[in-house]
Amino acid sequence: MKLPEKLAAAISYFSLLPGVGEKTSMRHALTMMGWRAEELEAFGSAVKELANIKKCQECFIVTDQEFCSICESPLRQKSGIICVVESFADCMAIEKSGEYTGLFHILGGVLNPLMGIGPEELTINKLFLRIKDLNVFEIILALNPTVEGDVTSSYIKQNVPTGVKVERIGLGVPMGGSLEYLDALTITKALENRRLL
Amino acid sequence: MKLPEKLAAAISYFSLLPGVGEKTSMRHALTMMGWRAEELEAFGSAVKELANIKKCQECFIVTDQEFCSICESPLRQKSGIICVVESFADCMAIEKSGEYTGLFHILGGVLNPLMGIGPEELTINKLFLRIKDLNVFEIILALNPTVEGDVTSSYIKQNVPTGVKVERIGLGVPMGGSLEYLDALTITKALENRRLL
Repeated sequence: MKLPEKLAAAISYFSLLPGVGEKTSMRHALTMMGWRAEELEAFGSAVKELANIKKCQECFIVTDQEFCSICESPLRQKSGIICVVESFADCMAIEKSGEYTGLFHILGGVLNPLMGIGPEELTINKLFLRIKDLNVFEIILALNPTVEGDVTSSYIKQNVPTGVKVERIGLGVPMGGSLEYLDALTITKALENRRLL
Repeated sequence: MKLPEKLAAAISYFSLLPGVGEKTSMRHALTMMGWRAEELEAFGSAVKELANIKKCQECFIVTDQEFCSICESPLRQKSGIICVVESFADCMAIEKSGEYTGLFHILGGVLNPLMGIGPEELTINKLFLRIKDLNVFEIILALNPTVEGDVTSSYIKQNVPTGVKVERIGLGVPMGGSLEYLDALTITKALENRRLL
């Protein structure tokens, strides 16, 4: 059975999203066919508008303005701490915890020589500029614990001006986690990172 | 952290889709921010166009035209068989099997008195009209095996003109299924529907 062209177009775009296969994209498109015309109009416009969202010129957080609300906050500017993350989603996860009150820096990925991703492809040089300009004394590396994340962390650590403290976030057993089901590497890291009670 | 309004709008619409929660919709929107502007433009237009997709005036399959390709096929018109399904997705599942060469009829739901869904809310009366107009001699009920689906099947069976054969699709163990993990009701149905080898 041939699907109407318009429907097929919507389905093909949905299936480009991560974790959305043929059936899910079909389901999404068919569900949306039941929506009111105004809703579809608004959703369509919102999708088009995604092309116009800017990134903060300092830290690359998504924003409506030239600079994001975090970079413009005097309190955070004065903190002298930058938390380095891979993506905006990671940044949001940290913000949600409500524990952190310093600045952020989004790398836009991690170093991966095999995929041709070197320091030039990321925002690493901008990070070093910011460290100088903002009198940063502490860098918190919050990159995902993968091989590439570790390589990127080492690279930053080696190239940071002397006198700047470089830390990485804690590795170990997640809250509510069950030792029984955790992988050996996580357990190893948790043992290495034990602290005096 | 306040998200840009345009981003928040896209996220809120994504989260209206079935099975898409806060995190997935965020992930979708952030992924799409990495797409090229032309792709977002095309996706946005496709979403808006979903409002203009029509349904076949005969069987309610989605189509670009007044009638769908199935209703316009002379071979299928002559078949004298209508397969009754709940939704377009069900119709597609049957078409994919390639086994069926008759007409379809999409009810648009099933009878559910508790939710206020009676025959008038579905396309049941149109089905009875089609049975007469098209000289249909066989109805295949392919409704999902739920209480409401069974009620709807019984209602159709009782109101179909005499002389029309009414059948429902087979119930039993699915191909590749494992008896060990199937529910008791499916096993019961499979035993009831046993056939001579």
